Amino acid sequence: MTPPIPEPAEIIQPQFFCRSRKFSFAVNRYRLPNGVVADLGYIAHPGGAVAVPVTNTGEFVLVRQYRFAAQGRLLEFPAGTLEPNEPADVTIKRELEEETGYRALAWTTLGQFYVAPGYSDEIIYAFLAQNLEKLTTPPPQDEDEDIEVVLMSPVALETAIYGGEIADAKTISAYFLARQHNLL
Amino acid sequence: MTPPIPEPAEIIQPQFFCRSRKFSFAVNRYRLPNGVVADLGYIAHPGGAVAVPVTNTGEFVLVRQYRFAAQGRLLEFPAGTLEPNEPADVTIKRELEEETGYRALAWTTLGQFYVAPGYSDEIIYAFLAQNLEKLTTPPPQDEDEDIEVVLMSPVALETAIYGGEIADAKTISAYFLARQHNLL
Repeated sequence: MTPPIPEPAEIIQPQFFCRSRKFSFAVNRYRLPNGVVADLGYIAHPGGAVAVPVTNTGEFVLVRQYRFAAQGRLLEFPAGTLEPNEPADVTIKRELEEETGYRALAWTTLGQFYVAPGYSDEIIYAFLAQNLEKLTTPPPQDEDEDIEVVLMSPVALETAIYGGEIADAKTISAYFLARQHNLL
Repeated sequence: MTPPIPEPAEIIQPQFFCRSRKFSFAVNRYRLPNGVVADLGYIAHPGGAVAVPVTNTGEFVLVRQYRFAAQGRLLEFPAGTLEPNEPADVTIKRELEEETGYRALAWTTLGQFYVAPGYSDEIIYAFLAQNLEKLTTPPPQDEDEDIEVVLMSPVALETAIYGGEIADAKTISAYFLARQHNLL
């Protein structure tokens, strides 16, 4: 990602702050660069990491995961939230093992993107994960995670994106970034 | 999008609620489907809509827009938040005209996706916008918007995604969904 030229809005008056488990929510009165004054709320997030894991037989490794905000289970690439000051490549190696039971021996940086820049500063760092090996004793999942591993062929993956079975922007975006690496 | 099978988490105890301008933030104590009890916060959002506008000469219409949460300007497809009970196709027709000064005479539904399902229920509805005409008197922009229109060839657009100049998941996802319509 080419980072935007830093141009922070001036905080005139903090209005509200609430700490949640992995992120915070803050409302501030801002003076925007164009002079407008507005009360705006946003999620202050440590960032996330997502993997596009490809097995040695060319299948993608996804997870079907319960998402309370979506009130159901979504099919996504494995991902997780950065611990404070944690490099994204450390996060994603841990999350891939916890969520899927696979370890990847070859990692490639794919890029990074905002997911909801209107109300979240979260940046997700995307990685291609190859040369996978199945762990004989995978680490335990986080206790509130509820995850099933799903293997998909490249054709099945694209069909699921175009058909709407995969309906998660980080998953679609990371897949698009991975395609330049001649996986298909 | 194939909607997930509805499986809402049980709210044991509301903890906190804050109304922001276009959405709310709520923390509740939940019992998740796997039995775990956890305090979780999320953005309750009315939904969004994004357009992939293509001119009659095959160029894409994007906007470079100030985003206070990202502390800078991002290059994105035109998008906006649904008004309460507003159909997404009504939202996106208005937003395209306001943000770009173009009207589209041909609209195609591309699909829909979550952008941050870990902490937001926002669904973005994506549309292909074709047969564009430049308005002689475009409607005024929202006063807190700070937007520049950018036209890009298909090659420039893909280069900007792979190079990181476009770093917005809804933009990348909507472009990927549009590609099946033989635009290039």
